Amino acid sequence: MSTPVRAATLSEFVARAFVAAGLPVADAQTVAALMTEADLQGSDGHGVIRLAPYVRRIRAGGINRQPDIRIVEERPATALVDGDNAMGHLVMSRAAAIAAQKARTTGIAWVGSRLSNHAGPASLYARMALPHDMIGLYFAVGNANHLPPWGGLDMLLSTNPIAVAIPTAHETPVVLDMATTVAAYGKVKAKAQRGEPMPEGWMVDRQGRPLLDPARAAEGFLLPIGGYKGYGLSLIVGLLAGTLNGAAMGRDVIDFNQDFKTTTNTGQAIAMIDLNAFGDPQAFKRRVDTLVADLRASERMPDVDRIWLPGEQSHAKRVAYGRDGIPISAALRLALDGVAEELGIAPLP
Amino acid sequence: MSTPVRAATLSEFVARAFVAAGLPVADAQTVAALMTEADLQGSDGHGVIRLAPYVRRIRAGGINRQPDIRIVEERPATALVDGDNAMGHLVMSRAAAIAAQKARTTGIAWVGSRLSNHAGPASLYARMALPHDMIGLYFAVGNANHLPPWGGLDMLLSTNPIAVAIPTAHETPVVLDMATTVAAYGKVKAKAQRGEPMPEGWMVDRQGRPLLDPARAAEGFLLPIGGYKGYGLSLIVGLLAGTLNGAAMGRDVIDFNQDFKTTTNTGQAIAMIDLNAFGDPQAFKRRVDTLVADLRASERMPDVDRIWLPGEQSHAKRVAYGRDGIPISAALRLALDGVAEELGIAPLP
Repeated sequence: MSTPVRAATLSEFVARAFVAAGLPVADAQTVAALMTEADLQGSDGHGVIRLAPYVRRIRAGGINRQPDIRIVEERPATALVDGDNAMGHLVMSRAAAIAAQKARTTGIAWVGSRLSNHAGPASLYARMALPHDMIGLYFAVGNANHLPPWGGLDMLLSTNPIAVAIPTAHETPVVLDMATTVAAYGKVKAKAQRGEPMPEGWMVDRQGRPLLDPARAAEGFLLPIGGYKGYGLSLIVGLLAGTLNGAAMGRDVIDFNQDFKTTTNTGQAIAMIDLNAFGDPQAFKRRVDTLVADLRASERMPDVDRIWLPGEQSHAKRVAYGRDGIPISAALRLALDGVAEELGIAPLP
Repeated sequence: MSTPVRAATLSEFVARAFVAAGLPVADAQTVAALMTEADLQGSDGHGVIRLAPYVRRIRAGGINRQPDIRIVEERPATALVDGDNAMGHLVMSRAAAIAAQKARTTGIAWVGSRLSNHAGPASLYARMALPHDMIGLYFAVGNANHLPPWGGLDMLLSTNPIAVAIPTAHETPVVLDMATTVAAYGKVKAKAQRGEPMPEGWMVDRQGRPLLDPARAAEGFLLPIGGYKGYGLSLIVGLLAGTLNGAAMGRDVIDFNQDFKTTTNTGQAIAMIDLNAFGDPQAFKRRVDTLVADLRASERMPDVDRIWLPGEQSHAKRVAYGRDGIPISAALRLALDGVAEELGIAPLP
């Protein structure tokens, strides 16, 4: 059971909650808008569902409400941003703005963060390149380790996601947003909530045997995509987004689902490539459109109705939910009502 | 059966072959050194085994022996290099040098190529960042399409590889070099040569059923890593390395194993990030060493002898083959003898 709520209504409620929790109004609105955008595109595991744990972290002192987000290292095409333990959405919005400004001059820019926090779905930030006629790339260290090195048992790595957004002319932008594990941990939690078994290939136990019962998730770990390749990718993303920036990586990553007080020292990185630096942007975008059309027109396997391009399904949701409202489940509404009561604000209408 | 050949001996022979095929001496030596380096690190599918097809392409007029490799678009941190249909090794060596020079000033640089050609293993170029205390990233469009879009049957995508090289203090550099398919096509060909079945998960037939007989490889296609995720990764790599540069991508990619005459218009991209732009490079490299040691020390699954880091196995080969010589199989020697005879040069000693 879920009922639709208009994006503006949802965003306004979330902003009120953050103001009540002590964030400045402008910051509260920025975070609320990005969380709502996550739900709008169907990234509901990284959207408004996070309000309760975010508020819990803020109230526990695990987030700096008055941060001084600043550049601590800078070159013409790079910056290292110290997030001062702000909400991650604020840090990465700032990082994206810096990247776009620099890339306009230098052709590409790369901005890393440390002392940041969970910032929602990776694609939000990669997509910030699109209005600038730029390609966006985003990398992040996940906020809990669920992946051991290949052949190992110690969970030293996370789902470390990659997102890339590519401008198009008339087609939907190509937006890839993927964890480097077969399943994101949020999907495991969703299976547990619904009491459904996991498909084989998501997790294994400590003997390497398939683990299908999501209630036993703590006894095993996620599998990386492509076996040792996904292990390597997760490691590389962590080195680029975490270690390079002096952010937490490996054994320094805390589980932010268990610990609401310790500074996460989250690391992320965003890069933008200006299409103008590689010739006529319109010509590029037309080439992407042609490629997209070719892929979509491919002959299909039996029982396949449609070839999807990365980003098309989230775009379709953005259109539908923007028109009809964002579906809010009874469970989520209950959680949001709880936050409202705790903060002494009016509930989501 | 294989006999060891010293790297210098092998490289000298390959250079002589290219000179006999019409490449200028300096270019022949550059290509020969990189091909030998590929074999030295165990990337034997992309090394000297390619001499015969490379020479065949040069003699068929499919490679420009006197290319004018030049920058056609440039910003402070980016360049687009027109390879003028040169051997890919020459184009990407030049691109890497440009990237290193620019990144020293700007913090990061990104150099793309078009009208390039197959350049050997991706890691060769990512590794060129290491002596500069830089991180190297390399992306390439594969030279034959073996992958359909997810759910499709038309092979519009290739194994489009990614390589990333990360400097370390005392540990072996972390070097990831991976195709975005579960198996590279060269591994399928190797299975066919040895008459061995492929493991399930490498290829499927046009009904989506596992294809295990490598002799039937033409009836099916490679599987991407992580299903639709690997499809998305392959597409993104192709957009970054091919489409952005005006190089071939999708239906424009020719199969260079079948067609030795048509210009491949291969696209690649190399990026370098200067460690100095993110703080003290030594401190970063020590952090990587610590992470590597932590991963290696992980408790292991039953029957796992050792946790490997990406790049360690190729490093071990580089050390062993540098000391003992590169193992050259009887079949490869026969092929090299054939090239020597065809070109009228002395065979490999």
